[in-house]
Amino acid sequence: MIVYGGDWNPEQWPEEVWSEDVALMREAGVNRVSLGIFSWSWLEPVEGAFEFGWLDRCMDLLAENGIQACLATPTAAPPPWFAHTYPEALPQDADGRTFTHGSRQAFCPSSPIYRDRALRIAEQVARRYKDHPALTIWHIHNEYGCHNARCHCDTSAEAFRAWLCERYQSLDALNEAWGTAFWSQRYGDWAQILPPRATPAIGNPAQLLDFRRFSSDALLDLYRAERDLLAAIAPGVPATTNLMAGMHWEMDYWRFAEELDVVASDHYLNGDEPHIQLAFSADLARSLNKGRPWILMEHSTSAVNWQGHNPAKAPRELLRNSVQHLARGADAIMFFQWRASREGAEKWHSGMLPHAGTDTKIWREVVELGAALRDLADVEGSTVGADVAILMDYASIWAQDHPAQPTAHHKPIEIIRQWYGELWRLGVTCDVRHPEDDLSGYRLVVVPALYLVSDAGAARLRRFVEGGGIAVAGPYSGIVDDNDRVRLGGYPGAWRDLLGVRVEEFFPRESVELTSGRKGWVWSELAHATTAEVLDTYVTGEPAWTRNAWGAGAAHYLTTLPRGADLRAVLAEVCADASVPTADAEGLELVRRSHPDGRSYLFAINHGDTEATGGGVTVPAGEFRVARLESASQ
Amino acid sequence: MIVYGGDWNPEQWPEEVWSEDVALMREAGVNRVSLGIFSWSWLEPVEGAFEFGWLDRCMDLLAENGIQACLATPTAAPPPWFAHTYPEALPQDADGRTFTHGSRQAFCPSSPIYRDRALRIAEQVARRYKDHPALTIWHIHNEYGCHNARCHCDTSAEAFRAWLCERYQSLDALNEAWGTAFWSQRYGDWAQILPPRATPAIGNPAQLLDFRRFSSDALLDLYRAERDLLAAIAPGVPATTNLMAGMHWEMDYWRFAEELDVVASDHYLNGDEPHIQLAFSADLARSLNKGRPWILMEHSTSAVNWQGHNPAKAPRELLRNSVQHLARGADAIMFFQWRASREGAEKWHSGMLPHAGTDTKIWREVVELGAALRDLADVEGSTVGADVAILMDYASIWAQDHPAQPTAHHKPIEIIRQWYGELWRLGVTCDVRHPEDDLSGYRLVVVPALYLVSDAGAARLRRFVEGGGIAVAGPYSGIVDDNDRVRLGGYPGAWRDLLGVRVEEFFPRESVELTSGRKGWVWSELAHATTAEVLDTYVTGEPAWTRNAWGAGAAHYLTTLPRGADLRAVLAEVCADASVPTADAEGLELVRRSHPDGRSYLFAINHGDTEATGGGVTVPAGEFRVARLESASQ
Amino acid sequence: MIVYGGDWNPEQWPEEVWSEDVALMREAGVNRVSLGIFSWSWLEPVEGAFEFGWLDRCMDLLAENGIQACLATPTAAPPPWFAHTYPEALPQDADGRTFTHGSRQAFCPSSPIYRDRALRIAEQVARRYKDHPALTIWHIHNEYGCHNARCHCDTSAEAFRAWLCERYQSLDALNEAWGTAFWSQRYGDWAQILPPRATPAIGNPAQLLDFRRFSSDALLDLYRAERDLLAAIAPGVPATTNLMAGMHWEMDYWRFAEELDVVASDHYLNGDEPHIQLAFSADLARSLNKGRPWILMEHSTSAVNWQGHNPAKAPRELLRNSVQHLARGADAIMFFQWRASREGAEKWHSGMLPHAGTDTKIWREVVELGAALRDLADVEGSTVGADVAILMDYASIWAQDHPAQPTAHHKPIEIIRQWYGELWRLGVTCDVRHPEDDLSGYRLVVVPALYLVSDAGAARLRRFVEGGGIAVAGPYSGIVDDNDRVRLGGYPGAWRDLLGVRVEEFFPRESVELTSGRKGWVWSELAHATTAEVLDTYVTGEPAWTRNAWGAGAAHYLTTLPRGADLRAVLAEVCADASVPTADAEGLELVRRSHPDGRSYLFAINHGDTEATGGGVTVPAGEFRVARLESASQ
Repeated sequence: MIVYGGDWNPEQWPEEVWSEDVALMREAGVNRVSLGIFSWSWLEPVEGAFEFGWLDRCMDLLAENGIQACLATPTAAPPPWFAHTYPEALPQDADGRTFTHGSRQAFCPSSPIYRDRALRIAEQVARRYKDHPALTIWHIHNEYGCHNARCHCDTSAEAFRAWLCERYQSLDALNEAWGTAFWSQRYGDWAQILPPRATPAIGNPAQLLDFRRFSSDALLDLYRAERDLLAAIAPGVPATTNLMAGMHWEMDYWRFAEELDVVASDHYLNGDEPHIQLAFSADLARSLNKGRPWILMEHSTSAVNWQGHNPAKAPRELLRNSVQHLARGADAIMFFQWRASREGAEKWHSGMLPHAGTDTKIWREVVELGAALRDLADVEGSTVGADVAILMDYASIWAQDHPAQPTAHHKPIEIIRQWYGELWRLGVTCDVRHPEDDLSGYRLVVVPALYLVSDAGAARLRRFVEGGGIAVAGPYSGIVDDNDRVRLGGYPGAWRDLLGVRVEEFFPRESVELTSGRKGWVWSELAHATTAEVLDTYVTGEPAWTRNAWGAGAAHYLTTLPRGADLRAVLAEVCADASVPTADAEGLELVRRSHPDGRSYLFAINHGDTEATGGGVTVPAGEFRVARLESASQ
Repeated sequence: MIVYGGDWNPEQWPEEVWSEDVALMREAGVNRVSLGIFSWSWLEPVEGAFEFGWLDRCMDLLAENGIQACLATPTAAPPPWFAHTYPEALPQDADGRTFTHGSRQAFCPSSPIYRDRALRIAEQVARRYKDHPALTIWHIHNEYGCHNARCHCDTSAEAFRAWLCERYQSLDALNEAWGTAFWSQRYGDWAQILPPRATPAIGNPAQLLDFRRFSSDALLDLYRAERDLLAAIAPGVPATTNLMAGMHWEMDYWRFAEELDVVASDHYLNGDEPHIQLAFSADLARSLNKGRPWILMEHSTSAVNWQGHNPAKAPRELLRNSVQHLARGADAIMFFQWRASREGAEKWHSGMLPHAGTDTKIWREVVELGAALRDLADVEGSTVGADVAILMDYASIWAQDHPAQPTAHHKPIEIIRQWYGELWRLGVTCDVRHPEDDLSGYRLVVVPALYLVSDAGAARLRRFVEGGGIAVAGPYSGIVDDNDRVRLGGYPGAWRDLLGVRVEEFFPRESVELTSGRKGWVWSELAHATTAEVLDTYVTGEPAWTRNAWGAGAAHYLTTLPRGADLRAVLAEVCADASVPTADAEGLELVRRSHPDGRSYLFAINHGDTEATGGGVTVPAGEFRVARLESASQ
Repeated sequence: MIVYGGDWNPEQWPEEVWSEDVALMREAGVNRVSLGIFSWSWLEPVEGAFEFGWLDRCMDLLAENGIQACLATPTAAPPPWFAHTYPEALPQDADGRTFTHGSRQAFCPSSPIYRDRALRIAEQVARRYKDHPALTIWHIHNEYGCHNARCHCDTSAEAFRAWLCERYQSLDALNEAWGTAFWSQRYGDWAQILPPRATPAIGNPAQLLDFRRFSSDALLDLYRAERDLLAAIAPGVPATTNLMAGMHWEMDYWRFAEELDVVASDHYLNGDEPHIQLAFSADLARSLNKGRPWILMEHSTSAVNWQGHNPAKAPRELLRNSVQHLARGADAIMFFQWRASREGAEKWHSGMLPHAGTDTKIWREVVELGAALRDLADVEGSTVGADVAILMDYASIWAQDHPAQPTAHHKPIEIIRQWYGELWRLGVTCDVRHPEDDLSGYRLVVVPALYLVSDAGAARLRRFVEGGGIAVAGPYSGIVDDNDRVRLGGYPGAWRDLLGVRVEEFFPRESVELTSGRKGWVWSELAHATTAEVLDTYVTGEPAWTRNAWGAGAAHYLTTLPRGADLRAVLAEVCADASVPTADAEGLELVRRSHPDGRSYLFAINHGDTEATGGGVTVPAGEFRVARLESASQ
């Protein structure tokens, strides 16, 4: 079956509402709910005193109604007593400002007392429900690091030093890696090292980068500790936590994903063409899960509440969004939250059951979606194939967060989205991969913006092309090593040979005209083709687009950033070079899921306002269709 | 007589200037000055040591010259010794930043030591001058909460807890009212409750709202304490403090006004069409004073100094502004300040006597205004009638300050100003009323933006319409109860029945086209007319403007926000529905004040640049006229 | 010879790179390097333990290769042990935020422990190298106050009080000077005085201004202490520090310049028409050095790294920039830095030797520049003459930083740049002078924006005009005394008589039309010509441009701010009035340096994109020419 449901927060409502909830869940076809996520202060209202009665009744109600429980450890929101009793465990920002309770995630990720109290409540939950018939999967914590990803307090400082000591072993190695010769920053004692707190001038980039790595690891450690505890108490119950793939960039999700029994991810619409951002998020979630079906743990039925301006969803947008996730590999479609809150910070976040009740657009679509997913139960377990991989790494994005860059307008996340967007328009389904992943099996590897790449990562791409693959890289990729040290001798130091290009200087600028009539944005370079063929130039003559034969393959390079149709045209030619078929999607999204036995499903989702045809399927404006095919064919 | 004058700060000038001051006051027709407002450090230069000689001489000088003293308690600006001796009494913001002396109002409103020292100096002033012939009225403090309205320090935290304990009696009631089930915020002990200090994520909306209420009450308590002390020492001398009606939204002026012997208010031009904002401020000040004549305690002769860009007043704008206030019910026209300062933070604030002296535009207009007010002495005591009431409440505005809203572009103050502005253009004089006020006596009640309304407030409007009144409400009104909890079952929960409309979902957007050709801004809704008649729709069909017959009256509802001429046209039709006469004012402001005996005054102020006629009066561009009528008639 | 070189930071590189460095320096014609600037943590890695071996080897290498050393005291960047051991010596901002190590300049300028440790390392350096053959000049510290110009900590507070006590002698004098009568700020004890920390409302302007003066003096004291120490140890070795003339406005460089053996200054391109800003910076540096040849201590070969968007230099821009500095009086042309860093906060700052090595545009131009400077060795010692002086003072700019002004759009630095820019376009070479300097010898004195002027300064300009000079002043000049107290009786109080104008009121506005067809921006005034002739008016009649005969000269006044061609036309007429020749430069910059013996050099630098001719010299687009003339003639 396809899992369907949302976050159920019964503690927000009087008990008489619960039976109505369950009845409506059945009407909507809900077969799983997440619960207990923000229940710590209700389970342990006074430190060390536990109240489980209400949750027992909820779990029983679910079991009686055949609804699975994705049961949370409530550790993302410590109760007020925690902050009041242990103020030393509160998080601090770089300016020394302390954040207290009254929202959520008010804890320092490195705090021993937080860890202890979190494990204690997690253990209570696990022991009590490990054998409950409703229990299906553990939902550990919630959106790790959403608000407290980086803590600069003294406890974090100590943990950071321990992490560095483990990483570098010696102060000399750290001084070398951090380039402390610059601005007289040589450390003479581990104790002198701090998190990147407020400084009079620009801070050390390697320190900043390592602090990001440390901070991500500190949260991952918390996840591991809870997971190991749950596994010991309830062996066999899978565990996950909800990442925010493509939405949140504070944690190294590549490392997190390794530790999850199954990847779960949240997605909310935001910005322009949000359905394309949704597709990227889904592809990333699937890639984090190594191509296996994943869990969409949260999305929204309509508006969210945390943006300055929160658009509501147009009629049938809910359905299209959910089916997009399904098409891109999710086997579970879940929402935050089941019943829209009457109070609290998120009362203006839509739910499956809105404030206005069941006589509403939202409820009718929720019911329709439930039925549609029931009809698509056989999709479960099928997977999505891709000929194209986009390289993305968190460390590279973090390194570029250091403020001293050639230009602040080269924004790697935005560039990745732009390139992904044009590939989406060309109807090309992409995986997202870590630079050090094995790339064999792809026809084309796309590197929109990968400022930092390790030696191992650099070699991977070289080997991929050598073996016959086609690669295409955007500018300011392959520039520094994994301590943010420039690879010398001409840019991009990691791939000068592979690309057959030597860049001597960056020329950030608003835009540049190309001989082809195309336009580049943000960036330009004084580049020389050493062994590469020049495919396009600036009107002033310097190379804009090159192609270098390398081994059995070839590597393209752009020295500037085309956008929109210009970028699409370039990527189309690169795809052709790699024998990757393209189409003019025009708002009709086509994605295929396949079973190993040859059964496959062509999902066709029409985001446009006119009827569209593609892949042999005709879809009315705003609707979706799923075509079942017996043998997998592209 | 009409009171005329300004703030006199003799301590800023050598004593030889004082006699020139008084002579020029007489030349200008000044009959009252405020003094002593910022004199604490001159009256008590060392803690506990008082120097009153200079103030004695100033008070005597006034008495000798027949000028009334509006004598201040100097408590708005504690001397440097206060901050130095009692750093624990300084205010803190939500981030824990402490504010110190060197400007003004550097004290925590809940500080016991501040209260004690403030009452001590107030007592000294009162005892010394209670029988002085110049003493006419007490000017307590100055612009309460202008800079220190919300303090988050530990002292405030304790006072906040006491206030909450008084309000809710039990923690259970508080947990219920604040919706602490959301995000695990259930309080187990009063001691765990804090002001809304910095939190990692969005804070609790009800906590924020109660903190605003508490903060306003804390300042009001200080006012009461001073007032009671003065009343005990000098019975019969009225007391007031200068509010900033329509300019400042930190205090609940409805509650403040209850405690003032007469409402005094300050107004400064700001933003676009500032004379319309002035009119709103004046109408609000009059309404706060329950329709009785009020005191314009401060306005400016020309530029202020606290905006980024401070426009000076055009010739005769000073006169028009002053007469506007008079027309709208003020019986006292006063300025900040008498003599423009040579030094200090406000030296670029205009005064009645400018830096350049008496051979100036400003001085000539000041003298002319004095003469004009003398000629209008019989206006004193007359009142302004209004058929229309606009509902406004501070708590509703505060609740919308919580950042998690459907859209940040729905700004209640701005919307109230827009609706007021179009009524002004229609020549309609309005009162402003609290939602729980008795509304009988009005023909039309206007509710531009009242997100929060209590059950009592909701019932008031229902009863008003039932009794034959006409009401008109803008969207996102009547949405939550007084703890910011959504009224469930379809919006607007407070008035679904009254309006005959059920809204199932909000669709904030930039703009929406209406079938009438009009346009709505910022907001739209998926609404259903249950019993209402639909007067206009979106081009996509949903109701935009409805009218519901209810009892002997009717209630209009707008699901979007028209502006300018579109809004004016709607309001004109609503006025017609309510038999409220409208005109096309075209910049000629017409307001009537009346005596109970039938004598009345038609004030005609021409803000345009061509001659204009209205109400039978012709007024040259930029001028004003006052027509005396024997029997009041509309 | 003309000095040529840059910052050499050998500690950033393995020792094997050093010999390559020196060889390439010789290839490029480098004859001096700055070194040791950020070496503290390498010279004293553990407090009190010194390691000089590496620096010995570097100094020897320089001496062996005939390269001069501009040897630094490394006090601008205390090592991590300093912050760790002495946290009380870290700087704090007005909000109480402490800045720690990890960048540079993390020290409180008033900290006694910082001063002690800085002098100790400076002494070590001085003693070790005082007789070294490479040692040529001391480079004390680096860019004083670049990041820590104002510290608000308790140590600074105490030092500020001492400075005030010295300045005012008595509290009464301070209370008078600061206008503490305003807002009850009268101080009863020195101990009550604080730096301008966070306050609830606008702070005291005179306090703010004195704190700026104090802060500048605190840094200057540090300079003096190091200089005196070095002079005692190594008599005869000149000392300097690198100012940032025209780029940085935190220190009073007029006072700093008095203490330098020779003025050194840094300049980096920024903003629009950066070559004109460069010219201003160079003219200011020369003026600070009283017209004598100065040292360009740092500029860049191409991009910098500290702006949001860092444009790289176009081909030959490096050459033009360097020659501009030379033309305007520099006898030393140096860069930050010799070899572009591989790591650290400034790795994206260009160097003489770029990441890409010697086969680069940058390196070729560096070599070409070295040769060109060698050819111009005889320019050394020649000076630049100017008929025009622009008045500029730091205290005036600081005073206008107080937020309560008529308008925030009147920005003195921007206005000075605009006026300078139009004089540059007219081919007029200008000095920059302090208002209290002797102005005799100039034909024209220009006062674009001098809000604050002391009595002595006001008298200087009066005397200059009296003696036959021509002056021109912009609005909001001559307004306050040196404690920011308004000069009463009509603006501009300092020069009402000289200008023959009395202004009664300021009318800031976006723009104003003039009768001449010109336009004024930002500012207008209600002015009266008392004795002046009116040369232009607003279309509404008030004076816009006046000229007042005064003694043997005349003083022009503008009541508004023309821009661009309008401003240029006005200044051209003023120049004509002063018999200062003008030309239409059209991008061809012409500057003359002369020797006392009559030999002179006409520098012609073509910033345009077409060939241009001027002063008898024809220069291709983008190039420069230097014409040698035997007898000086204008």
